[in-house]
Amino acid sequence: MAETGALLYGQAGGVTAVINASAAAVLHAARPHYSAVYAAREGILGLIGEDLLDTAPLTGDDLTALAHTPGGAFRACRHELPPEADAPALYDRIFAVLAAHRIRAFLYNGGNGSMDAVGKLHAAAQRRGYPLAAVGIAKTIDNDLEGTDCSPGYGSAARYLVASLNEAALDLAAMSRPGRGERVFLLETMGRHTGWLAAATALAAPRAPDAILLPEANWREADLWQRIDAALGQHGHVILAVAEGVRDPATGLSIAERLIDTHGHTQLGGAVYHLAERIRARFGVKTHCAIPDYLQRAAAHLRSGTDFAHAQALGHAAVAAALDGQSGIMVGIERLGNAPYRWRTATCDAARIANLERAVPRHFLTPDGLHLTPAALDVLRPLITGEPPAAPRGEDGFPRHFRPSLPTVPKRLPAWRGGE
Amino acid sequence: MAETGALLYGQAGGVTAVINASAAAVLHAARPHYSAVYAAREGILGLIGEDLLDTAPLTGDDLTALAHTPGGAFRACRHELPPEADAPALYDRIFAVLAAHRIRAFLYNGGNGSMDAVGKLHAAAQRRGYPLAAVGIAKTIDNDLEGTDCSPGYGSAARYLVASLNEAALDLAAMSRPGRGERVFLLETMGRHTGWLAAATALAAPRAPDAILLPEANWREADLWQRIDAALGQHGHVILAVAEGVRDPATGLSIAERLIDTHGHTQLGGAVYHLAERIRARFGVKTHCAIPDYLQRAAAHLRSGTDFAHAQALGHAAVAAALDGQSGIMVGIERLGNAPYRWRTATCDAARIANLERAVPRHFLTPDGLHLTPAALDVLRPLITGEPPAAPRGEDGFPRHFRPSLPTVPKRLPAWRGGE
Repeated sequence: MAETGALLYGQAGGVTAVINASAAAVLHAARPHYSAVYAAREGILGLIGEDLLDTAPLTGDDLTALAHTPGGAFRACRHELPPEADAPALYDRIFAVLAAHRIRAFLYNGGNGSMDAVGKLHAAAQRRGYPLAAVGIAKTIDNDLEGTDCSPGYGSAARYLVASLNEAALDLAAMSRPGRGERVFLLETMGRHTGWLAAATALAAPRAPDAILLPEANWREADLWQRIDAALGQHGHVILAVAEGVRDPATGLSIAERLIDTHGHTQLGGAVYHLAERIRARFGVKTHCAIPDYLQRAAAHLRSGTDFAHAQALGHAAVAAALDGQSGIMVGIERLGNAPYRWRTATCDAARIANLERAVPRHFLTPDGLHLTPAALDVLRPLITGEPPAAPRGEDGFPRHFRPSLPTVPKRLPAWRGGE
Repeated sequence: MAETGALLYGQAGGVTAVINASAAAVLHAARPHYSAVYAAREGILGLIGEDLLDTAPLTGDDLTALAHTPGGAFRACRHELPPEADAPALYDRIFAVLAAHRIRAFLYNGGNGSMDAVGKLHAAAQRRGYPLAAVGIAKTIDNDLEGTDCSPGYGSAARYLVASLNEAALDLAAMSRPGRGERVFLLETMGRHTGWLAAATALAAPRAPDAILLPEANWREADLWQRIDAALGQHGHVILAVAEGVRDPATGLSIAERLIDTHGHTQLGGAVYHLAERIRARFGVKTHCAIPDYLQRAAAHLRSGTDFAHAQALGHAAVAAALDGQSGIMVGIERLGNAPYRWRTATCDAARIANLERAVPRHFLTPDGLHLTPAALDVLRPLITGEPPAAPRGEDGFPRHFRPSLPTVPKRLPAWRGGE
């Protein structure tokens, strides 16, 4: 490693409670080895626009505080990189920026779209003979990335949902009488195409949801009614976890889309409201809907210790892989065992898993498609377990979030007018 | 105090994250002084039905665990006690149950409806010459009780909302570019008639909501549009906090009710969805709605230290008042100073404040009615501050909630057939 040049780190896609833990780990691990460690503002858009931040002013304490802060410290973009054949000038620009700042490693922290960018940049660098280590760092609350056992962000959002449901279940139990069914509570989780977050609510204990509705599951309305009926009798209330992308079993369409169709204009509510209306009509009970939305993916105060450790480990592993000369890969998690839970970081080909979506496997589900098997819970449980090191707190007891204010790296190129 | 007989404790109305802290304090304080300490199952319904639990088996550790558990351990009812003149047999029944179990104190933990029951039971006892101390213990997340500076439950729900918004604001900042307004985030808080919870979100820091919509405030749509416009430019996103009972400024009707009118049938979504639709139509931006619903009032993991201390103190004060021979009163909080925050417990006449709703005062609001004044924040801030003692946790890092399983007190009367 005679001359490693600079390293550039970027964030993409929906942010999570632990993406900044990966960021802090990258910055910490890269410093001894690179002449400079930059962060791209808004992910690959910052690379294209030469909008780079110098992370040198961040102290060790700053990096610790950063690791405990939810959101994306350098801002994230949702931007698809076109194939080089369709946008040669864009790729010329990207490599001009890389060269102008002697960037030798680009570490991209994102989901399946970001891994597509990693694969394309790697291929383009190879074609040019440009010495770039393009390394992806797995991240998504949806847990739908292939090539990794799980994705940082998921475990924390799942832990938030489970902890919240454990509390809400006590509220419901206090307000309803067993044998006199009165109340159905619906919790809508994120997950448009895959239901990993909804699936994790099966870990709520001692009161798991009575049914869990995933976008990828096949279920019959009659089976849902039966589960609701049984729970109304047993508990006096019903708890349902519903992924936002749940589909109508009759039409196969998203229930939220169906809502748009029904009223002929824009969507008024989440899928959960539509389902609640059907339940009210059938059972004549009160319904209550909770939709945590962004709260679930930003909930650093309920991060999972496992998830936090994964996020940090992937940051370190990505720097190690880049220093090792690897490129076109994603670093992810490999599971070695469930009880006790053992894991290590692993790499896979970024292009191979780009743009794929991993669904909750069929064998994780009960025969009626409305719940999780005990074996599936054994797989999911370690991901929501444990607490991370305590976050710094202020006198008022609130976590002290860290918002880095960093100098922009002086531009060396003319402004880019070619569009994004 | 020659012979104090038994004490009966009951919970009513929507439960909170700290009502069990009041319960644990009552049981702890009452034991040395009463021959038995009972809990009514489902509040006053348990009294009417002679459905009483003996709390004697609870150990000191159990009471500590109970204090840290959200929900209502003995179940809560929403039941209005009719005037005695309308239901003499019901009152005869109640006093028969009280006499059969030598109950000399009834401590009722609830909101304005429960204080009505306290006042009526006190008056009925006086008419009968029955030696009963009927004492109310303030409780409501809505903070709308008169006769107390604040109500236990409110501070914790408010703290949950502020902490959640602090996290969500970082997510929003990561996903939007200042100067390019793209996204409006709406957080719906509980509060059908009063907006205390929505008001507390003004304490979110460093990023308070751009506007806060309370049911009791008067505001003009043009002022809301202006605030949204300004925030889109400054932050690239907008944060709105909306009480569920927000009213349409044009019609004065609840926006959720208007939603029912519009579509001619049942309510599909929260007020926040309707507002989001109007915002989308006007500004052409993405909207995201979060509706924590029960999660906000059950969130023991984000309890306020002040609120927890209030809840415990009121439990102790209620027992002391009963032992002192007071009756027909509610124990609440009196504020002695803001900086530093100082308070003590105080009592008021339960009948006087029964069924009243305390709105957020007009002088708490900015001239446009869409935000809180700094002076109002000084009043609200202490209520969400500090952390309670750490709750017991399991190996998985999740709080260990406590569900008491208590023996039913043997019935001494025939079953009540008179209805509730």
